[in-house]
Amino acid sequence: MTEFTTQGRTETLARRTTVEAPGNGRPGPADGHEAAVILERARASVDPELRAALDSLPGSMRRVALYHFGWEHADGTPAAAHAGKAIRPALVLTAAAALGGPGARESAVRAAAAVELIHNFTLLHDDVMDRDTTRRHRPTAWTVFGDPDAILAGDAVQALALGLLAEDPHLASAAAAARLAACVVELCAGQQADTALERRDPADVTLDEVLAMAEAKTGALLGCACALGALYAGAAEDDVEALDTFGRQAGLAFQLIDDVIGIWGDPNRTGKPAGADLTARKKSLPVVAALTSGTPAAAELAELYAVPCGTGDAAGTARIALAVERAGGRDWAQSQAADRMSRAMGELARVIPEPESAGGLLALAEYVTRRSD
Amino acid sequence: MTEFTTQGRTETLARRTTVEAPGNGRPGPADGHEAAVILERARASVDPELRAALDSLPGSMRRVALYHFGWEHADGTPAAAHAGKAIRPALVLTAAAALGGPGARESAVRAAAAVELIHNFTLLHDDVMDRDTTRRHRPTAWTVFGDPDAILAGDAVQALALGLLAEDPHLASAAAAARLAACVVELCAGQQADTALERRDPADVTLDEVLAMAEAKTGALLGCACALGALYAGAAEDDVEALDTFGRQAGLAFQLIDDVIGIWGDPNRTGKPAGADLTARKKSLPVVAALTSGTPAAAELAELYAVPCGTGDAAGTARIALAVERAGGRDWAQSQAADRMSRAMGELARVIPEPESAGGLLALAEYVTRRSD
Repeated sequence: MTEFTTQGRTETLARRTTVEAPGNGRPGPADGHEAAVILERARASVDPELRAALDSLPGSMRRVALYHFGWEHADGTPAAAHAGKAIRPALVLTAAAALGGPGARESAVRAAAAVELIHNFTLLHDDVMDRDTTRRHRPTAWTVFGDPDAILAGDAVQALALGLLAEDPHLASAAAAARLAACVVELCAGQQADTALERRDPADVTLDEVLAMAEAKTGALLGCACALGALYAGAAEDDVEALDTFGRQAGLAFQLIDDVIGIWGDPNRTGKPAGADLTARKKSLPVVAALTSGTPAAAELAELYAVPCGTGDAAGTARIALAVERAGGRDWAQSQAADRMSRAMGELARVIPEPESAGGLLALAEYVTRRSD
Repeated sequence: MTEFTTQGRTETLARRTTVEAPGNGRPGPADGHEAAVILERARASVDPELRAALDSLPGSMRRVALYHFGWEHADGTPAAAHAGKAIRPALVLTAAAALGGPGARESAVRAAAAVELIHNFTLLHDDVMDRDTTRRHRPTAWTVFGDPDAILAGDAVQALALGLLAEDPHLASAAAAARLAACVVELCAGQQADTALERRDPADVTLDEVLAMAEAKTGALLGCACALGALYAGAAEDDVEALDTFGRQAGLAFQLIDDVIGIWGDPNRTGKPAGADLTARKKSLPVVAALTSGTPAAAELAELYAVPCGTGDAAGTARIALAVERAGGRDWAQSQAADRMSRAMGELARVIPEPESAGGLLALAEYVTRRSD
């Protein structure tokens, strides 16, 4: 999935979710400052645990992992870059704090590190499978160290994550490990569905399939992060599930917005050519919604999508974008994203009615549905 | 590593270890019948747990995993073949029974399944990395389903293994999961070292490096299996470590014998051309021992090994085999294997002095050091 790496935003959704946020009248979350502070604190809490885990790896795998996490250059010298925005660890810690206070947050640092390790294990392997050559503005690990070393580093990082929880004496650690292991299976299923979908005829792909894929690939780990925080706060099973749903739905909202930006995003802000996802003929959510809309524009889009297109054909790409829009793909994705965020907020309000306690999770959910690239 | 799949044996070592077996005068273990019974029982105990775990996987990954385990053909129809000899689950169950009786054996079935899942996750990934096309007399999973599906199935199978232990209410399950996770890191390091060693100039490879690689790649999981059995029997930390050493050293003895057979094995029994490992210029243990022996034959061997060789050159292969032998590689490997088995038996006798209780583990250790292909 796409990383959360920039500070841009989709104004419409941010306003909408702020308005819909139950009982939250504060201006804080929407301006992104609260999220930035939370992410910074999460990074500071989790980094020592992550570093200790990665430093425990034997020679070559340590080097691949430290390179992937941005802590070392390819030649093994220290690097200043850090590993993404720590959204997932922040969700673990913020959920724990929201339900159990500062003590629960403190106790969940290892679980937060485990979630971040799992996220990075999937990135290492997805990059190998997808032959992606760039990650966080650097060459991907497999391009630097080769497929075998990237695969092995990913394998070891998965083991580190589940090992961290196995060694954690916290009462919730076994339930957290079981949940995280089940989430890994779901993440793998999501990646599998994604690669399989990309190989299929667009005419045969249903919207339910693409939504299920996005939920497994993007929503599952955000949901699991929130659920682990709840487990470490000693929350009841119902509340753990509600927080999983909160993270999952926020993750789906993120993916919907990300797909909209992949088609209509401003190239000056995304850093990619206009309509990059269309040029690549990606079966993104707005495209599949449009293709399955039963409108005349859907038929036109199907014809256009059946012809591979060179990257230089800006006029052709613009024509496809227009067809997706006329077939209702853009409106559907925007309204789905808003619905998902609304559902996320509803689950959150049910478990944590006090705005003071829910504010951190709310700020993070808004943050992830802002512009990313 | 090589699978344990045939009933052949190396008479010298089998006799030697039987003689050295502490206090064990019974004829049972050496004839292989006791091991066969133990393996059969282990398979019967573990298969339902394994099947349930694999059946819990989502669609496509379930299919890849069931194919790899030999339970389904490539087209998804049921297959009769089963997944190897269940050596590792048998070690878990037999160690548990030896230290804790039938109740401990019963309680360790899930741990035994977890160890077998980890073994198969490494096989799935190693086959991708090594581009091996045959496993258990069938095309490897990646040749049938492609690299991405084989990688994802392996990832999911690792998660299933650690998830099984996380869900296990047994008091020892967390310690077992931590130990198994650490073992995964060691297995990955072993595979990494193996691929790195094969790329290096034979003249620069030391015997310690190759021994360390073999211990990580082959010994670690056999040791971990025994240690998990001990943990489930409630054994003291010292005894857990001793059983780990027992399995590790037996695993190294196996690898040494396997490497000897890869050079001097009878093609009629191995099913491979004579000296297949030499033709492939493998840096196996006897070869590296010979190369680093400082003898005149070592220099001759180094020259011969520097020239790649076609598969048809039987005379050239025979000449290399002779050089390895004259440089002492064969004797060294045989005596190392005997020493490792002796050390394994010593550790076993220290923890379990009664031959009646130790007999099962002894039989399995002898079984693994017999001929395999």
